[in-house]
Amino acid sequence: MKKDLDRIMQKQGIDALWVNGAAQNNPDMVYFTGIHHVSSADLIKIRGQEPVLFYNSMEREEAAKTGLQVMGYEENYPIRKYLQLANGNTLQAVALRYKDIFTDFGVNEKKIGIAGKNDLCAAYAVTKAVQELLPKVEFVGCFMESALKTARLIKSPDEVEHIRRMGRITTEVVGNTADFLSSHAAKQNILVDDKGSPITIGLVKAMIRRWLAEKGADNPEDTIFSIGRDAGIPHSSGNDQDYLELGKTIVFDIFPCEAGGGYFYDFTRTWCLGHASDEIQKVYQDVFAVHQKMVDSFKANTAFRDYQSETCHLFRESGYLTIEDDPEITEGYVHSLGHGLGLDVHENPFSGMGSGSQDVLEPGMVFTVEPGLYYPSKGFGVRIEDTVTMNEQGKIEILADFPYQLVLPVRE
Amino acid sequence: MKKDLDRIMQKQGIDALWVNGAAQNNPDMVYFTGIHHVSSADLIKIRGQEPVLFYNSMEREEAAKTGLQVMGYEENYPIRKYLQLANGNTLQAVALRYKDIFTDFGVNEKKIGIAGKNDLCAAYAVTKAVQELLPKVEFVGCFMESALKTARLIKSPDEVEHIRRMGRITTEVVGNTADFLSSHAAKQNILVDDKGSPITIGLVKAMIRRWLAEKGADNPEDTIFSIGRDAGIPHSSGNDQDYLELGKTIVFDIFPCEAGGGYFYDFTRTWCLGHASDEIQKVYQDVFAVHQKMVDSFKANTAFRDYQSETCHLFRESGYLTIEDDPEITEGYVHSLGHGLGLDVHENPFSGMGSGSQDVLEPGMVFTVEPGLYYPSKGFGVRIEDTVTMNEQGKIEILADFPYQLVLPVRE
Repeated sequence: MKKDLDRIMQKQGIDALWVNGAAQNNPDMVYFTGIHHVSSADLIKIRGQEPVLFYNSMEREEAAKTGLQVMGYEENYPIRKYLQLANGNTLQAVALRYKDIFTDFGVNEKKIGIAGKNDLCAAYAVTKAVQELLPKVEFVGCFMESALKTARLIKSPDEVEHIRRMGRITTEVVGNTADFLSSHAAKQNILVDDKGSPITIGLVKAMIRRWLAEKGADNPEDTIFSIGRDAGIPHSSGNDQDYLELGKTIVFDIFPCEAGGGYFYDFTRTWCLGHASDEIQKVYQDVFAVHQKMVDSFKANTAFRDYQSETCHLFRESGYLTIEDDPEITEGYVHSLGHGLGLDVHENPFSGMGSGSQDVLEPGMVFTVEPGLYYPSKGFGVRIEDTVTMNEQGKIEILADFPYQLVLPVRE
Repeated sequence: MKKDLDRIMQKQGIDALWVNGAAQNNPDMVYFTGIHHVSSADLIKIRGQEPVLFYNSMEREEAAKTGLQVMGYEENYPIRKYLQLANGNTLQAVALRYKDIFTDFGVNEKKIGIAGKNDLCAAYAVTKAVQELLPKVEFVGCFMESALKTARLIKSPDEVEHIRRMGRITTEVVGNTADFLSSHAAKQNILVDDKGSPITIGLVKAMIRRWLAEKGADNPEDTIFSIGRDAGIPHSSGNDQDYLELGKTIVFDIFPCEAGGGYFYDFTRTWCLGHASDEIQKVYQDVFAVHQKMVDSFKANTAFRDYQSETCHLFRESGYLTIEDDPEITEGYVHSLGHGLGLDVHENPFSGMGSGSQDVLEPGMVFTVEPGLYYPSKGFGVRIEDTVTMNEQGKIEILADFPYQLVLPVRE
């Protein structure tokens, strides 16, 4: 949580954070600012002090809306001055400006943690140029467990409410989608509209985008709505021109966020329109049983990856191949059990074996539970996913309820 | 253009590009891949060779859809192997994997240009760790004029068509918005719905989001729809709870992109509902005259910043204060004339004085023309913006036509 940030910075030996980029679609920055139309900014957070947000003068009102302590670049560190000093070299001018800012903030010989999402090319050039001007600064990067990402790992009650609200929006849209599909009839086993034209995945996705937008959600990473063989490949997002054939599995994985890059939700249901074969029903029931068992099994202070092992164990017992037995399989349980989510759709904790994650589950964490079985060669796949939180008592709570129904009826 | 990339890399002495991040919402990557659901990838482009895209196995189908030469991390450089080598240290494992990839590609002692948009903290850590493993590699960053951004500066005819298509969508949504506003009546000078409740900016923005989503556009940086005093601050995006008062200027600046982070459009109109004061009409006419003059004046092989000077000159002649006379003004012409756009909403060329831009206009460039006059103290602001391209003959073409009408009638 944000209130733990100073302690975490202390533990990691970080004196200050330098968060760069916009105040939207930029998780590390939005964590401090909320979502605002500030397109280019820096936030300096010194350990033990409140953060300060730098803004360009045209965005002064938007910066002020963050409620943070703010400081105008132009009023305090006008770029014209630095361009003169740098003989018109923009990179050097920007670096000189950071030098003055870091010096005035007293961190010109300190350990500064780098944060934010932005253009890597410009960031590399600027960081290198500032390093040359301030050789005693130690910039600190981190692959997965930076101070900020460690703080973000435990959600405050307010953050959980944001995610819960996105869960409500997400499941409403999933309900709209189910109603839309069920309101149509099939012709020659293909779902068609009132004029008899096939309904395409592209059309369904357009409806989903519209429903999300109406409810104030963004869909920055698109939606997985894949059928048949494609449903057998976990991250295949589906082909817009494909038709909806009855009896084939549809994997519908939807992960929208608050408009402007706020908190995400992540949710999957698998549907068959009209009917499902015995084989698919059996696989679905087995995935559902594992899903329910896992939701009931999480305990505080245990490693997330242990539940990936347990999931493999359960599937193995039912006779399925798993990624634990052979990491190269593409049929069976080929996936990992879940991942944290918040301002990023994928963030710590991770259950995956491949990620080398050591994450331990704790109250306040929010993560997905998404077992699945995949058979591209047989033309189907099944995944069931909910987003859950571990509450103060260490109990697991699904953040948005929605029925676990495999077969969606269609109009006769 | 992409076909010039090898030549530009040669000129800048860059042997290879390393583009990191997703194949969506990541301009440098999308430039090669198009928009696909590939959430974590690297693209290596060696000078004189076709690029190669690395993907995670679950995203193999999405990677294949790019049409590029692709290579699976797992099939070729399995992370398990590197985790073993690195004793479970994920950062070190990832760095060792890059070491092998760069070595196999023959660029382990070369100049590698960094590109892409991603988490700065992880990128800093990884780049530093790879540098330590490959001390003879020279990583190259660039503040604004990297090889890739230089190539992106000149649009291919296909790219211009993408932007033109977004222009069509954008102006359709602006038309929808005008129709929506004009279809309502006012009560006590405030626009109201059929039940007599005031229409808020938040409602208008929700409609705009819905119309954009329906047409397949994303709105990642929100929309500026600001009224009165807020319209007098160029980047104030407006307050959701504000009402629409007749006679006040509304600055409506809309900059959506193709869903998933494709090509942008950027467009502004200023409206007064019902009527406009003489003062506002005069300022509007002066801004419009400058807009028209500037659109007609651009010539190939001239500096974009010279047109910023010319715009200041024209406004000065009409008696307005300009940013050229005093860079700290907040009233008058406080803005810069325009900026390039493409896969970024703001990219080279830039006309601004502050940016130190040396950009020269050339055929194939796409940029905005957006003069404005701002009077927050008087409670109004005016901006008129179109996106234009310079064609092969050096002629300027506005990419989406839309009327320049200040007063929008409302229902009686």
